[in-house]
Amino acid sequence: MMISRNEILYIKSLKHRKSREVNGHFVAEGPKLVSDLANSGMIPERIFCTYEWLDMYPDYSDQLDFDVSPVQIGEMERISFLTNPSQVLGVFRMLPTQDLTGHHKTDLVLVLDDIRDPGNLGTMLRSADWFGIRQIVCSQGSVDLYNSKVVQASMGSIARVNVVEAELRHYFNAILDEAPVYGTFMDGEPIYSSALIPNGHIIIGNEGRGIASELQMYITHRISIPGPLIHSEGKMAESLNASIAAALVIAEFRRQHSAI
Amino acid sequence: MMISRNEILYIKSLKHRKSREVNGHFVAEGPKLVSDLANSGMIPERIFCTYEWLDMYPDYSDQLDFDVSPVQIGEMERISFLTNPSQVLGVFRMLPTQDLTGHHKTDLVLVLDDIRDPGNLGTMLRSADWFGIRQIVCSQGSVDLYNSKVVQASMGSIARVNVVEAELRHYFNAILDEAPVYGTFMDGEPIYSSALIPNGHIIIGNEGRGIASELQMYITHRISIPGPLIHSEGKMAESLNASIAAALVIAEFRRQHSAI
Repeated sequence: MMISRNEILYIKSLKHRKSREVNGHFVAEGPKLVSDLANSGMIPERIFCTYEWLDMYPDYSDQLDFDVSPVQIGEMERISFLTNPSQVLGVFRMLPTQDLTGHHKTDLVLVLDDIRDPGNLGTMLRSADWFGIRQIVCSQGSVDLYNSKVVQASMGSIARVNVVEAELRHYFNAILDEAPVYGTFMDGEPIYSSALIPNGHIIIGNEGRGIASELQMYITHRISIPGPLIHSEGKMAESLNASIAAALVIAEFRRQHSAI
Repeated sequence: MMISRNEILYIKSLKHRKSREVNGHFVAEGPKLVSDLANSGMIPERIFCTYEWLDMYPDYSDQLDFDVSPVQIGEMERISFLTNPSQVLGVFRMLPTQDLTGHHKTDLVLVLDDIRDPGNLGTMLRSADWFGIRQIVCSQGSVDLYNSKVVQASMGSIARVNVVEAELRHYFNAILDEAPVYGTFMDGEPIYSSALIPNGHIIIGNEGRGIASELQMYITHRISIPGPLIHSEGKMAESLNASIAAALVIAEFRRQHSAI
């Protein structure tokens, strides 16, 4: 089996958002991630495995319920986006644009305001999935959902969480007063001593600037993640990583409502 | 001002652990990170800023209480480790090897078993710092503390948290029975319904394999981070990112003891 030069060029082109959007395909790498996606309803277009992998796992194709194309290690190195190529690479169809499903009326919705780091976005999808959050709304300035680092960091959760891109002011204007909107701020009410409402929105702000000032008028509850009450030394971290903050806030909502 | 060719080569060499260890220097980039490190007791060897930066912030050198060397943008691009170079790059002295300080008797100690992803390690330093954890013990198989991605992700916390490298079996043998040892497992007791002891160790396992089997004999409390009790669909995330798990566990210890 050989991959054609055109196919190699095509796969490499999927590193770029433009090509992904034009073609409707994205790449995921690693045997576990590829099988997770295929088993979570993502539709594979092509799946490549090294001969070595197929020798070790001859029933991998059956597990996926999809044909796999064996390739030489050298070919895998040419198509892989990773510094250390994996044994398996899948080209998948992007999901059709998702719809908003009104989850904010009965459950939590995570709203991401210009999250720029793909590792952060992927990790947030994974944490949301873990804690049973099914709806995420991303601002238009957020990193592309199908960026390969987002896909890899999400560990398959990208297939299981409903992600909608929206202009956030339009989004909030359309659902005004339907549900609380929580935002994290340094001077907000500490989450561990706040009575959190079980449904509504949690906004996570951009890694550098926090929540955009134009969104602050929609926030009904200003919350914070407290640091230690007593410092032995004066200096400490000024902030948490955005994906850490998201997980801590979601977990506390779930804990208070005995949903975990 | 010009940087010599030798100096450029020297700075580039600090990408590699070997050169960092031989020379005792590491690189940190970004005006905020460099000033955070300098103001948290890290000793700078050289600090480079673009002329553009110095024009905008002529008192940057005074803030640091250290001379800065202005360079052309092209020179900064040559020495930077980042895809998008920052305006400021500092070469700092590595801290001398840290000592264990017996924190486990009165406070929490984070024990990292072969954390391999530099972003995860840096993020854990930042979260530990936020929650006032002052002692971290890393296994010898962990990613190097001064890897530039660790330094960048720690956001300055690398200067404020005491990190010791140790062979973890030796470490636990030496302090046997002195304090509880918590480890996270899929089948552990859910943290939100466990009465957690305020001092001792939290072990975070490797991203792929979890906690090494050879360490499990030292664990006195098997805990877990619960996912949602009710699933609308069958599938969900199988695990959390290691740095997310670490933050959730630390936060719950602190919450239960009203330390945050």
